Amino acid sequence: MANSAIVITPEQLLEHWQGHRRVTRRLIAAFPADQFETFTIGGLRPFSGLVQEMLAIGVPSLKGFVHRDWTTSFEPRALSKDAALKEWDAQTDEINALFPKIRAEQWQEHDKAFGMYEGPTFELLWYALDNEIHHRGQAYVYFRALGIEPPPFYDRS
Amino acid sequence: MANSAIVITPEQLLEHWQGHRRVTRRLIAAFPADQFETFTIGGLRPFSGLVQEMLAIGVPSLKGFVHRDWTTSFEPRALSKDAALKEWDAQTDEINALFPKIRAEQWQEHDKAFGMYEGPTFELLWYALDNEIHHRGQAYVYFRALGIEPPPFYDRS
Repeated sequence: MANSAIVITPEQLLEHWQGHRRVTRRLIAAFPADQFETFTIGGLRPFSGLVQEMLAIGVPSLKGFVHRDWTTSFEPRALSKDAALKEWDAQTDEINALFPKIRAEQWQEHDKAFGMYEGPTFELLWYALDNEIHHRGQAYVYFRALGIEPPPFYDRS
Repeated sequence: MANSAIVITPEQLLEHWQGHRRVTRRLIAAFPADQFETFTIGGLRPFSGLVQEMLAIGVPSLKGFVHRDWTTSFEPRALSKDAALKEWDAQTDEINALFPKIRAEQWQEHDKAFGMYEGPTFELLWYALDNEIHHRGQAYVYFRALGIEPPPFYDRS
């Protein structure tokens, strides 16, 4: 394998991530507001808690990469569906602003996220994406358990 | 953003994917054999059906990229936990063999997967990964609903 291959450009990675974030936003918007902070299966967090984790990793990771500010909080808090959508949209803009500030060489540089997760920058950023897909997959089960058809997984528009 | 940036090399993408596949394998291995083809929530497919979809996309996508053989089948079939693990391990080896045959320029080339999904090759391959994480996230809920602690999401070793 040629290591000089361009598998994916930073622009493409940003668009891929924002595409997934559009899907997640549609799921938040489609979830019953009165179940958002309460509905759960098997002791898992409600959708509100899953979204809080996404919000605590996305922009905070970028602030770490770009500003070396690695503060975040995973403390559970009250977060209604409307408040979650507002925070989601604010992060959409912040991501678009911060992401291009990651230096070209930085993707392959070793870093330590939030003082504890070590690896190359691409891998640390990728965790935000994988973690979002993982927890959103759980939210899809909440939809089905509530008898509601969720927005499709494959439509990133 | 510099488009010449190496965000991720093909080797790193392969290792990232196989890391996720190790997590998924551990989930299959930890799931109760007698519930693998039957347990479901809200009309979703049982874990066996989710794994069948992963198997129908992973290696078949690579065979398409490398051999231009775009055959696969999403027809539901009987697949026990033991049989799933066997097919999983066979695909692990096939992925390691086929993946390095993707040409360096090919990642950015437009392609059409299975005669219907169009996009750059990296995006088509990435779907296999995202789809696996998505459905595995659903399987995590099955674990919790069954009262079983699942193997951790973040451990890709």
